[in-house]
Formats: sequence, structure tokens, C-alpha cells
Amino acid sequence: MTDPRLTPLAASLPDTVPFVGPETQERAMGRPFAARLGANENVFGPSPKAIEAMRAAAAEAWMYGDPEAHELRHAIAAHHGVGPEHIRVGEGIDGLLGLLARLTIGPGDWAVTSEGGYPTFDFHVTGFGGRIERIPYDGDRVDAKGLIERAEFAGAKLVYIANPDNPMGGHHGADTILEMIDTLPEGALLVLDEAYVEFAPEGTAPEIDPTDERVIRFRTFSKAHGLAGARIGYAIGPAPLIAAFDRVRNHFGLTRMAQAGALAALQDQDWLAQVQAHVTDACARIAAIAHDNGLVPLPSATNFVAIDCGADGAFAKRVLDGLVKRGVFVRMPGVAPLNRCIRVSAGTEADLDAFAQALPEALEEARAAD
Amino acid sequence: MTDPRLTPLAASLPDTVPFVGPETQERAMGRPFAARLGANENVFGPSPKAIEAMRAAAAEAWMYGDPEAHELRHAIAAHHGVGPEHIRVGEGIDGLLGLLARLTIGPGDWAVTSEGGYPTFDFHVTGFGGRIERIPYDGDRVDAKGLIERAEFAGAKLVYIANPDNPMGGHHGADTILEMIDTLPEGALLVLDEAYVEFAPEGTAPEIDPTDERVIRFRTFSKAHGLAGARIGYAIGPAPLIAAFDRVRNHFGLTRMAQAGALAALQDQDWLAQVQAHVTDACARIAAIAHDNGLVPLPSATNFVAIDCGADGAFAKRVLDGLVKRGVFVRMPGVAPLNRCIRVSAGTEADLDAFAQALPEALEEARAAD
Repeated sequence: MTDPRLTPLAASLPDTVPFVGPETQERAMGRPFAARLGANENVFGPSPKAIEAMRAAAAEAWMYGDPEAHELRHAIAAHHGVGPEHIRVGEGIDGLLGLLARLTIGPGDWAVTSEGGYPTFDFHVTGFGGRIERIPYDGDRVDAKGLIERAEFAGAKLVYIANPDNPMGGHHGADTILEMIDTLPEGALLVLDEAYVEFAPEGTAPEIDPTDERVIRFRTFSKAHGLAGARIGYAIGPAPLIAAFDRVRNHFGLTRMAQAGALAALQDQDWLAQVQAHVTDACARIAAIAHDNGLVPLPSATNFVAIDCGADGAFAKRVLDGLVKRGVFVRMPGVAPLNRCIRVSAGTEADLDAFAQALPEALEEARAAD
Repeated sequence: MTDPRLTPLAASLPDTVPFVGPETQERAMGRPFAARLGANENVFGPSPKAIEAMRAAAAEAWMYGDPEAHELRHAIAAHHGVGPEHIRVGEGIDGLLGLLARLTIGPGDWAVTSEGGYPTFDFHVTGFGGRIERIPYDGDRVDAKGLIERAEFAGAKLVYIANPDNPMGGHHGADTILEMIDTLPEGALLVLDEAYVEFAPEGTAPEIDPTDERVIRFRTFSKAHGLAGARIGYAIGPAPLIAAFDRVRNHFGLTRMAQAGALAALQDQDWLAQVQAHVTDACARIAAIAHDNGLVPLPSATNFVAIDCGADGAFAKRVLDGLVKRGVFVRMPGVAPLNRCIRVSAGTEADLDAFAQALPEALEEARAAD
């Protein structure tokens, strides 16, 4: 039953959600996962200084957080060498994508993204009545040129690309992104989601003039900085667009703990470097485990590895179910042909031991069901 | 300059924000406030158990919070003796009001509220293209009957009332609220903001059948539970409407710390009782300080006291400026005739010492400028 007071748009929206949390699966199973490798979280955790900053802020939780996130915003601006008028801090990239969609997408407006790409972008565009063109991947990489061509054809307002990519883990070099910007149709905005960029090779993140009105880029503290549970990310973009977020955002929506934790995390670049090294090692081990089982790991510029299970989506789903059943939380892409893969996040040694143990059994079971 | 890609609605929105944070004033003054009595925060703080729960959760901040806030949602439901399908946890009442406006208000839809009432409701309704009828207070109380009559006249979809009221601090008894519900025009929804209800006399919060489709009520952990900086509140309402929030919300928007802190706060009703006692004492002292200075404190059912400064808005503003200048952060209502008052939140003894010291000086200065 639908509430009769919903707007026609709200009434038309599906009841589906972009992701089901691992806790929901744990409740259904009646036990916790032994290894949490499905949400591309950072098992190596935030900087101890960030934890300490959040613990200190917890005692001050009776005060609202600064609605301007002034200190953090200025620190991020300084970190990137841009003015604070180009930075907007928000409740994760998810929250900021929602605000961007609200600002730019009205009923019937078009957005372009990749088929099988990050579903939360689609969720928000659809949620504001927008229409979506989805471009198939070019092999296992986002079809950057195809996105631009379709944007031109559709008269799209938003063109979304995650670089590095989720869920496949690949990346384009900065040159490709710069070429996308240069060929972007008039009136369109490139939405450059760089959630995983701290894990990518040098030369992935383009130098972009933040006054360039053709692009808004998103970064997060959820991945490399290990603060997924604090929900904080930011946008870098042209000042008039960044300013417009103030018209629609939840001004006191950022917690005090998140602001304090993010600031401390940003300032601890040594910890970040350690995390990057751990992630590199963990991804190499995931790839090795895949090889050991006769599977093909895709190259990763992120903190996860997509593993080609060598057959179709139904087969990969059986492998995934077998892993989940054995207490290893992983996810997989939602559409063919990407869904021949499962997606495994960088884990601790114990996490990957559990994965290494469960995978052969899950594979055997999946093959037996053929 | 406005970004050309904004929707016509977004382009039409003003650049104003509902509230300026005290940190912004502090930065302008170049020093922190000595007493933070302007945002109706709870200076007595959250339960030590809530702080401990948030501190423990900080170490697990690498994990996203449960997007269903399952444990907290069920605990709240049990606390109120309703099913969890009637509860929606979100990023404070502000965030939930934004989602409600998004779900129900399209361009040209009407909402009714009080003139001088909570501006964030207006911000969200306007933000989705809605139009607002504002009903003057009846003396210093919300004109409950007037709201309903105007709702009927305007064909409003939303009728907002804060009970107890902010910014004047008064309240209506449960009977008045129940009568509003019974006389609510067909197709309208009563938005009952009970942010301050834990401070109100018995008999303020009506017993409402949560299956009643005519009303949605909002509670928060920001006030009595002392968790403003954790940004967490909830809605109680009919299941179809509560379910619809899933179509538009930021699913992973609640931090792990907030969920843990709110759960612990809810479970520590002894602490809540202590806070209530402290607030009663503090409000009595604020009233006494007002009397000492020849001013009239309004009766309060909240954690703040509106003080009638005895003249017009310009005078009260000078009093407020004098307090702010002396390091005492207070706020005041935005429109006449409410703006003859300043609004002072319950503070610690030290806070109220600072207020008691600053007020006579601020008054003298304000009178001298006449």
C-alpha cells in the first residue's frame, strides 16, 4: 500500500534499495560473518589519531557539529591546494550524489552512467525523476568515450564515471579523464567519483583546475582513510555549484565525531601510506588465491579484486552463495557480463585465510550444481 | 553567479540557510563563547554509557553503520510499544523533515506552519517547491485551531506543529493535539515535532495509534538525550509512509557511533531523569535571572526559556548582541511579535553565572541606545 499523500514521483519510485547491508545477511544467517570482504571497507582501519579524535569528540557530542565544517573544509582545501569555496563536505559520496542529483536533475532530465556501475548514483537520479542511459563496459573497463558519445546524443546533464572503477576495479589514466572533460557536451557535468583514487597508480587522478565548470569530483574518508562508519566525504568543484549545495543540504548533518575523525585522518598521511601498502599486499594475495583456484583476478587499482569465476552470472552467484554460507561476506556485480565475477575486498591475513579456505569448497559446490 | 545546470527549482532557491552555527560567530569574534546557550543543546550531556558506546564504536569506524539501524530501530519500537514498521531512524529531525518534504511536497503543494516557527521545516518545504502558509501565534502559543483552519482553506498536505513549541517554549496539552488530528482536513498529514517532549509536563504527548495515517511524529536524541553532535532522530508513523522513506533516504547515512550512542542513551532512563531534573532547575534559574532584571520569562515546557525583553524586536536584538559580545551565545525568534524575546537554553551553573553577569550590562547598553 502506498501513502496517498506521496507526490506522483515518490509514489512511482520502487521500494528497492541500492545495497543490502551485511548485518541484514548476518541476521538472516543467525551468525556474524567471519570475514567482512564485501563492502570495500578498509579492514586496516582509520589512523589511531582519527580514532582518538573521535573518542575525544564523543564526550562533546552534546554540541551540534559545526554546520560549515569550517576546519575540515579548510584543511581539505589546503591539502588539495584549492580555495575552500571549491570544497563541500557531506555525508559520504552517497549523500553528496543525492544532493547533486537534487540540484541538477528534474523530471525527464538525462544522466549517463555505466551498465553495472555504482547503483547509488542511479538511485538518486531516478529518485529525482531523472532518466538514465547505461553504457556497457568496454571489456572490463568503463567505456569513457561511449559515455561521452551517449551524453551528447541524450543531451545528458550528468555523466558519471568512477575512476578507479567499482565494481571491476580497473582504472583509466588521467589523460582519458581529461579527454572526457574536453569532449563533454555543452551543458553537461562530469561526475568524477574518485572514492578509490588513493589506491590507484600515480597518474590516475588528473590535475583539474577546480574552477573548471565542466567537472565535479568526489572523494571520501570511507575507503583509504577507513572511516566508512563515520560517513564523511567531499566534493571538489566550481564555486557556484559548490555554493548551491547550501540551498538543499542538511546543514547540521555532519556529526562532530566525523568532522574530528576526518581531520585527524587527513593529517596522518603516514598511516595512509601504511594502509596503501597493506592493501597492495592484500590484493596481491587475493589474486594469488584466485590463481590457485584456477580463476582469473582482474587488475585492480582499488582495495578490492574482481575475480572472474570463468562462467556466467548464475555460476558466480553460486560461488558467492557458497562463500557467504561459509561466513565470508563478498559481493558481485549486478549485470552481465560483469556478473561472471565476484568482488573481494582487501582483508587482514585472517580474513584472507578464511577466504582461501572457503573458495575451493564454494567452487566445488558451484560446479557440482552445474 | 548560478550554475547553469541547476534545475529551475534549485536555481530559484535563496542562498540563505536556516541557522548560522555558533562556531561561525566564534570565528568572527576571534574567541570562543563562554556560555553556549543558543542552540537548545543539552549541556548536561549524554549518558556516560552513550559516550562509552560511541567511544567503543569509534574503533570500529572502518565498518559502515547498519543501513537498517536494526537494533536501534527495534529498541525504539519496543520503548514506544509499537512495531518496528512504524519507526524510521534518520539524521536528526532536520534530516527526516527533509525526506518527508521530498516524499510529499511537489511544486505548488501547500504546507501550513506557524509564523516564527521552526525555520528548517520551511527550508525543506520551499526546497521542494512547496508553498507555505504561516499562521501567527495565538499570544505566545501556537494557534493549533488556526493551523487546521488554514490547512483546510489552503488544501495543505502538511501541517507542522512543534509541541512543546520552539522558539517560545510553551506547549499544548495532548487533548489539543488529538483535536487537531480529528479535525485535520482529508489528505493532510499532521507533522508533530516532539523534539522537546521529554522536558514537557505529563499529558503533553498524546497517545497516538501509530497506524493512524493522519499523523507522523518526530523525536530526537539531540535534546534530552544530549546527542546533538551525533545527529540522530526518528519518526513514528503509519507503516506505508514510514516504508516510503526507504525510497529516498541516504541508506548508509547514520554513523556507527550515532547508532551505538543512541541505543545506549535510550537504555539509560536514569540518566534521562537526572537531565530532566537539571533542566528544570536551570530553567527556574533562567526565569529568576529574568525577574531579577525586570524581564518576564515565558513558561517553558522545554530546555530553554524565552524571555520577554519588554520592548520590540530591535531592542531584544540589542540585548542579544550585548550578550553575544560578552561571550554568551543565545538566539531569538525571527519575527514580530515573538522577537521581543530572547531565547536562553538551560545551562550549567557556570553558564548561567555568565548569563546572570552579562544580562544587566547588555540591558543597560540596549536601553542606552534607545
